[in-house]
Amino acid sequence: MKVRASAPGKAILFGEHAVVYGKPAIAVAINRKAIITIREGTDDAINVQIPDLDVYGQIDIDNQEICLINNEETSKTPSASSDTSSTSNDLSYDAGILKYIQTALFSDEFKPDHGLDIQVDLEIPIGAGLGSSAAITVATLAAAARYHRQELTLEKLAHMAHQVELEVQGAASPLDTTLSTYGGFIYFTHKEGALKIKPALEMPLVVGYTAEPGNTGMLIERVRKLRQNHPNLIGPLLDTMEKLTNEARDAITSGEEKRVAELMNINQGLLDALGVNTLELSDLIYEARNAGAIGSKITGAGGGGSIIAYCPGKTREVLEKLESVENAFQVSISQKGVTW
Amino acid sequence: MKVRASAPGKAILFGEHAVVYGKPAIAVAINRKAIITIREGTDDAINVQIPDLDVYGQIDIDNQEICLINNEETSKTPSASSDTSSTSNDLSYDAGILKYIQTALFSDEFKPDHGLDIQVDLEIPIGAGLGSSAAITVATLAAAARYHRQELTLEKLAHMAHQVELEVQGAASPLDTTLSTYGGFIYFTHKEGALKIKPALEMPLVVGYTAEPGNTGMLIERVRKLRQNHPNLIGPLLDTMEKLTNEARDAITSGEEKRVAELMNINQGLLDALGVNTLELSDLIYEARNAGAIGSKITGAGGGGSIIAYCPGKTREVLEKLESVENAFQVSISQKGVTW
Repeated sequence: MKVRASAPGKAILFGEHAVVYGKPAIAVAINRKAIITIREGTDDAINVQIPDLDVYGQIDIDNQEICLINNEETSKTPSASSDTSSTSNDLSYDAGILKYIQTALFSDEFKPDHGLDIQVDLEIPIGAGLGSSAAITVATLAAAARYHRQELTLEKLAHMAHQVELEVQGAASPLDTTLSTYGGFIYFTHKEGALKIKPALEMPLVVGYTAEPGNTGMLIERVRKLRQNHPNLIGPLLDTMEKLTNEARDAITSGEEKRVAELMNINQGLLDALGVNTLELSDLIYEARNAGAIGSKITGAGGGGSIIAYCPGKTREVLEKLESVENAFQVSISQKGVTW
Repeated sequence: MKVRASAPGKAILFGEHAVVYGKPAIAVAINRKAIITIREGTDDAINVQIPDLDVYGQIDIDNQEICLINNEETSKTPSASSDTSSTSNDLSYDAGILKYIQTALFSDEFKPDHGLDIQVDLEIPIGAGLGSSAAITVATLAAAARYHRQELTLEKLAHMAHQVELEVQGAASPLDTTLSTYGGFIYFTHKEGALKIKPALEMPLVVGYTAEPGNTGMLIERVRKLRQNHPNLIGPLLDTMEKLTNEARDAITSGEEKRVAELMNINQGLLDALGVNTLELSDLIYEARNAGAIGSKITGAGGGGSIIAYCPGKTREVLEKLESVENAFQVSISQKGVTW
């Protein structure tokens, strides 16, 4: 038996960091997915392959322990050498994904009672602020539900995925798992949750991402401290970000391309003022603008990770430029969420 | 007879652009000067040499016309070829300095009645937002006063220099000419003018500057348009800049090094939000921070021009890094203004 499910990643267009302080954010699902394939196992363990990251792991059915398998030894027996195998407590960044898969697979409803072979195909770079962990979690839960022939509403799926993220990360916004589940374009507030918005414009985006991922927790803490040290400056900046995100929603729904771009650029300056910009991100942002992007900004927590460039009629030029600087790919908005 | 006068350049630390909208700014005179030497002429013209820029010009005593002399023909006769000679209406950027010298020299009190040889030595890059034209103007007026054995109060000198800048540029803030005249550390508002402030800290600064100067007029216009398009965002940002500059004054006078640096970095993000940042400036700003600067930002109008990096204990590291990227030099604050 073989089942497959996929779920898209996301990009925040407006309001990152401000959202931590109760301000709204605007985010989209992107047409880059995590694809999970589950087959009946060839042995008693749960074997997980993530070929895109060269990560191969095994999850013990009984004690749920994750064992990372050295890439060179593809015999799928745990390596004895301590620097090539590890338990879930000291997984590398890449292998950390196994923790989401383990937690999703062993949620109450889907506990496996026999071996499984799981393949994870990733169209989203991980650690780049593009919602890879939410996409993997949603797709894993969806594939597991299909494997166990269980019905699952989208609402239930989104809820379960958020619970998995909470369990693995300690804290998590429901934004990512909502977008991976439902797709589309959302305006998010803590009070009202995710509201779908209907864009009246195409949004051809190019994502550029740096080799080093940003550490979201550390960056949120940095902004918190800055706000504490400069309440009379950072408070008003966060208020301005709120106004900006609300203006952006209007501009998106009324199809004002230039206005959306200008708001992205102002938002970028405010993120820079919050101290989450870096040399590499700033390079990508200005190279994109020089190559024809009308708007460009950090997407996500910053400090590394990704930028988005809004470049109607210039995606090829911007893509080529950013690829020459770091890594880049083109994305469009995915109205589709999870597919199973 | 030979007289000499010098006047320092300046760097804006806080509040550029906001100052156009009636907000305060903080600026310092820097220990880089323009030095003007006036000798009795060897012929009937006013010969001006600016060796640092390879600019040689002649000003006609009767009609005050400026004639740029080709560098290769140092015979000091105007060249006949149209691409090596020009009148004051189409002077190159470098040669534009001659216009300030001409206007200063021919102000009512100092009208020359015989030939002069004038040498301009520049320790300040021109077009970099570091007040080179004000320094040249103040030093020229001071040297001319000495040459004509006229008494000139500092107040009168500052006023005359501002008039020269107004005449040459059409518009000018008195900030630059005030600092070139008096030196020191000032808090400037349109209402109260320049107020001296007493810093309670050393400010070792490194200036980095790009090959391309920014076009101040164009940048001021860009900010004006952005403010017009987004009054609900840019208005509050300018208000925040005002608060920031006032907090910076307090931090400078109470010697809070880290606070000054953080305020510089927040100010930089706000300048970025105003749309006056570029790839090259941003590179300098983040390279400086990576090399140990605790604060760094655009100084002046942006769009090219200069950045300042505040780097206690790290000036050498920051200087070396910025020199490897573009051009850089170390500055300290000059308590001295014009010297004659």
